[in-house]
Amino acid sequence: MANRVFNFSAGPSQMPLEVLEQAKNEMTNYAGTGTSVMEMSHRSPAFEGIIQEAERDLRDLLSIPSNYKILFLQGGASSQFSMVPLNLMTKNNKADYIVTGAFAKKAFAEGKKFGDCLDVASSADKNFTYIPNLSDIKLRKNADYVHITSNNTIYGTRYAQFPDTGSVPLVADMSSEILSRNIDVSKFGLIYAGAQKNVGPAGVCVVIVREDLIDEPQKNTPAMFTYKLHSDNDSMYNTPPCYPIYICGLVFKWLKSIGGVDAIEKINIQKANLLYDYIENSKLFTSPVVPEARSIMNVTFVTGDKDLDAKFVAEAKAQGLINLKGHRSVGGMRASIYNAMPVDGVKALVAFMQKFEKENI
Amino acid sequence: MANRVFNFSAGPSQMPLEVLEQAKNEMTNYAGTGTSVMEMSHRSPAFEGIIQEAERDLRDLLSIPSNYKILFLQGGASSQFSMVPLNLMTKNNKADYIVTGAFAKKAFAEGKKFGDCLDVASSADKNFTYIPNLSDIKLRKNADYVHITSNNTIYGTRYAQFPDTGSVPLVADMSSEILSRNIDVSKFGLIYAGAQKNVGPAGVCVVIVREDLIDEPQKNTPAMFTYKLHSDNDSMYNTPPCYPIYICGLVFKWLKSIGGVDAIEKINIQKANLLYDYIENSKLFTSPVVPEARSIMNVTFVTGDKDLDAKFVAEAKAQGLINLKGHRSVGGMRASIYNAMPVDGVKALVAFMQKFEKENI
Repeated sequence: MANRVFNFSAGPSQMPLEVLEQAKNEMTNYAGTGTSVMEMSHRSPAFEGIIQEAERDLRDLLSIPSNYKILFLQGGASSQFSMVPLNLMTKNNKADYIVTGAFAKKAFAEGKKFGDCLDVASSADKNFTYIPNLSDIKLRKNADYVHITSNNTIYGTRYAQFPDTGSVPLVADMSSEILSRNIDVSKFGLIYAGAQKNVGPAGVCVVIVREDLIDEPQKNTPAMFTYKLHSDNDSMYNTPPCYPIYICGLVFKWLKSIGGVDAIEKINIQKANLLYDYIENSKLFTSPVVPEARSIMNVTFVTGDKDLDAKFVAEAKAQGLINLKGHRSVGGMRASIYNAMPVDGVKALVAFMQKFEKENI
Repeated sequence: MANRVFNFSAGPSQMPLEVLEQAKNEMTNYAGTGTSVMEMSHRSPAFEGIIQEAERDLRDLLSIPSNYKILFLQGGASSQFSMVPLNLMTKNNKADYIVTGAFAKKAFAEGKKFGDCLDVASSADKNFTYIPNLSDIKLRKNADYVHITSNNTIYGTRYAQFPDTGSVPLVADMSSEILSRNIDVSKFGLIYAGAQKNVGPAGVCVVIVREDLIDEPQKNTPAMFTYKLHSDNDSMYNTPPCYPIYICGLVFKWLKSIGGVDAIEKINIQKANLLYDYIENSKLFTSPVVPEARSIMNVTFVTGDKDLDAKFVAEAKAQGLINLKGHRSVGGMRASIYNAMPVDGVKALVAFMQKFEKENI
């Protein structure tokens, strides 16, 4: 495809070109229905096929056990910040949060509205450049859940291992890394992920939740914030975001076609290593993140000179390497290299960094 | 476009072919950005241009005064059923509801969770086939708002006039008729509409709200259910449903290109009259709705014989006239003839009804 760029946006982000081409081809007439997926009744057999197949493919890709429900909801991770406490903080009205970045902080602040939430650990003291040592964390045995953010988009960190929370359900915001590496879903009570990084377009949020946790929510919870209603209606309590769900389904098919999560995890490690190995040896760029916590999805790096950072971002853009500016709370640069970023995109970025280093050191 | 059908679905529903064709053409490279709209950061200048232009065009189309905010939110009308009371029932904790159908009932039931909601009038006694006489309704002077459903998708009714609520803000769910006829926005405190009928694809909800009504919500309202947060952040408190908003923008451009709401209202009346005039004179089909309350968007009709109704729906489908089955609570047939349904589609339907009548009477 001519004139396409390598898009390192943190989200919404680059999608597989194959997916976009298929969506294009099917835009005015999906599978002989004579309609676009956008025009279909969500109660039509064609759309029911689409959403059911998307669910099956996601279940396959992550080996999601049969006692977990998959929901496709609206409102992004930000809505889950409220839905999780409203629906899960119902036994002892207590939850523990590990705060490893801006979104973890938001989730914690929102949770506090609905019960006794405690920030049992945080990496705020060093601007979220590490993940707290899990063996040091004292969790409350009677918490209704423990909440983590498994990959921190802004800071470029991730949990290499996940905390063992015993019988307390572990809840994870995986928005910026779902489907990028193998996880054991059975270790989690609930996983949620806004789609716009590794799953599909913005406007749909995937929730994977153990069935026994789906129960009556707190009093006066809005209907649309009730897992039980969405679960009882197979994500069709109201009109779902049909077209975004259809695109998610195409992304799942694409991921299966290239070998699933096993295959993409290898590619993702290869891509991340290309960048981190170069940065480790660079005289210009450094990573602000401790090695053991480095994300394979969001790679942050800085020159230490704001003007030079800005020059880098501008010159990269001129080369078709776009959206490399870091978040304002970290500065410098960030390359988001989600599943759909090809190895060639990362190679092009490293080549540009090498050239830039030579010219500016 | 070959092989397209006339889609009478109640929603999601038929879209202008011009819009789909443009979306198709721009799928992999929007306006020279080298990316799909689906791949764009919502903070990018390109997407900011898209959402701002969509807002401007909607403001033009409905002559929305400058003291009204336009929000593009997720969660559909069903989320507004909670957001309206949570954000507006904050002075006297009272609201009046006029119940004219299934969605009005849902809105009322949800409102009651958050305060003293009263169903001041209802047309449930005659299966919602009429709109209560507005002069008979006793509204409470100290209500925080009065809620109506301006067009009732399932039953095929609509308010020909709107109630005069004096200084009490009038709130209207206009999901199934927004942009189909001229309205005076200044008579309303808040208007909301799920997009999937006249505005765009499912997954985005338009909220038009008078600025003085945007204030602190009830205690412990989820962040994502707070108008003030969305308003302060111009619908970008979190990642919005970017692609659906882009399609809404294309629909607005299309509507402007054919002459705006004035022009489409004339066409809509013409389309509705084609059907209602034929039904009035038919010996087979009747309308369950009193004449003065008939919707120009959703035209319900019955033969009085369930088997014949089913035969009609099946034979129509075979002719490329799809989704004509009525909602189970009314039975019979329903032709949803939203803005994007061309006059030719309605003519084809009437011709088929005439043929069917001849063959089955």
